Amino acid sequence: MKRRSRVVALSGGIGGAKLVLGLSRVMPAADLTVIANTGDDLEHLGFWISPDVDTLLYTLAGLVDLERGWGRKDETWNFLQSLEQFGGETWFRLGDRDLAVHVERTGRLASGIPLSQITAEFCRHLGIASQIYPMSDQRVQTRLRTGDGWIDFQDYFVRLRCAPEVLEVSYDGAAKARVLPETIQALDDPNLRAVVICPSNPYLSIDPMLNVPGLWEALANCHAPVLAVSPIIRGEAVKGPTAKMMREMGIEVSARTVGKHYGELLDGYIVDEADVASCRDLDISIVPAQTLMVSLEDREALARTVLMSADAVAEKS
Amino acid sequence: MKRRSRVVALSGGIGGAKLVLGLSRVMPAADLTVIANTGDDLEHLGFWISPDVDTLLYTLAGLVDLERGWGRKDETWNFLQSLEQFGGETWFRLGDRDLAVHVERTGRLASGIPLSQITAEFCRHLGIASQIYPMSDQRVQTRLRTGDGWIDFQDYFVRLRCAPEVLEVSYDGAAKARVLPETIQALDDPNLRAVVICPSNPYLSIDPMLNVPGLWEALANCHAPVLAVSPIIRGEAVKGPTAKMMREMGIEVSARTVGKHYGELLDGYIVDEADVASCRDLDISIVPAQTLMVSLEDREALARTVLMSADAVAEKS
Repeated sequence: MKRRSRVVALSGGIGGAKLVLGLSRVMPAADLTVIANTGDDLEHLGFWISPDVDTLLYTLAGLVDLERGWGRKDETWNFLQSLEQFGGETWFRLGDRDLAVHVERTGRLASGIPLSQITAEFCRHLGIASQIYPMSDQRVQTRLRTGDGWIDFQDYFVRLRCAPEVLEVSYDGAAKARVLPETIQALDDPNLRAVVICPSNPYLSIDPMLNVPGLWEALANCHAPVLAVSPIIRGEAVKGPTAKMMREMGIEVSARTVGKHYGELLDGYIVDEADVASCRDLDISIVPAQTLMVSLEDREALARTVLMSADAVAEKS
Repeated sequence: MKRRSRVVALSGGIGGAKLVLGLSRVMPAADLTVIANTGDDLEHLGFWISPDVDTLLYTLAGLVDLERGWGRKDETWNFLQSLEQFGGETWFRLGDRDLAVHVERTGRLASGIPLSQITAEFCRHLGIASQIYPMSDQRVQTRLRTGDGWIDFQDYFVRLRCAPEVLEVSYDGAAKARVLPETIQALDDPNLRAVVICPSNPYLSIDPMLNVPGLWEALANCHAPVLAVSPIIRGEAVKGPTAKMMREMGIEVSARTVGKHYGELLDGYIVDEADVASCRDLDISIVPAQTLMVSLEDREALARTVLMSADAVAEKS
């Protein structure tokens, strides 16, 4: 039997991109398709900014600042410094090199080119062998209900540094958005080996995608195994507001909660060794692994575990 | 008699800004009003760019790159380098620091604030004591007829490096543009000491302004003396395409030609020592001066000559 080779990964920004990088290095990069969250996108200073798409672009092109996890390495900040002199808004950190992708994307969007095509063009320009598909060409806006009412994601995440208590999350526009036909095609591909839900924030990075009509169904009906990697390790998130907002929303902060959240979508679930026991009652294959990715080797090792687990699940069924 | 103190200067970019800087240093800066050419403005990469206004802003704020004459000192070019990676247009040189003024201006214009008010806000932010008024809040576009048809100014000036032969110049939109009421007020001010037409390109920098209805009349009826400084020295332009395009349009390249071009507007005309004789038949006061401005001292000295000449003309009449 010929080994199936294609992989589809669902990813948010920093955390997800780590695993995506690992995958792109332990399998043929051209066989990797990444579905990117665009619920965090914002219009700022007249630019259309797609933070998660950009993090994936930079990561796969080897341009990302590995320390920060977002933005470009060897970045300079003279634009922002100068913007302050002219009384502009500087709360959203835009580096000089980073700015180019926003300017160019905004211009191409204004001329009527859809986000998916622009992203494909950028991949080509940067020499990225994998495919990066935005979750939709229509706008979806992740918004958060706080004690002070509904606010936009980036207001919460960047401007207010995740300080407000999150009571509820919504994905404005999701109901009217459409999954890309290319995404459906990738999930239907007979050559599909696995679908990977990256260790991104389930509520802020993965759910915006799952709320776009058609994607959940396509994943549920997918012939290849669907696996998730837990973003929660021993009751804490590696980075970002995941644990804090789960607590605020009255949800137990655990790998098990996230596994249950994805529910029937999953055929396999990769969690930290310490979280295996608590996940046993989930009716899926639980795989213990070192899910904390510090080094490049960690990323590659976890990617290999994910792929091997997918193959094991596929063999069993 | 109380000495009149206010000065209005009409200026294009680099050459004009040199004299403007000199003026701002030898008289009370707050009494200096600069009318800036906006016929060179362009929309590029989604930004509204006003090159001459910016050169004046940077010059008066002490931020200009004195070597280049335009753009900011200590500039970096990482945005542009990165834009190239994404397949963007890089023929128009936009520095990282410079970019901020375009982003901020474009955003404010989009929210309905007129260019004149935005420019005033920028002056305040940069601590500029003088006033910089764009020639109009309406769009005027300097265009050039070449062998290959009509092209925009910046296409000619930057992209094609002034290579095409210029057969004709037009100022699209000028007929419908309006002079700022503040400009008329400044020219009507009883305290006005002089009007200075800076040594800018007459056809590309000064004429766009003079073609905005009302400005020529306001200058012609102005109670204060109007003086010009010749941009032509011994039959050659200091910088830029002035001499080349005069030749191409079949106009004699001389200080005298420019003096005749401004015609009845002028009460006095400051030219290089070598050009005095040829200008004698013009019916205005001719003042010999060192009009080539290399050092800061040159700028100040020429500014002083202009002001003293204006006072002399005023006393005679």
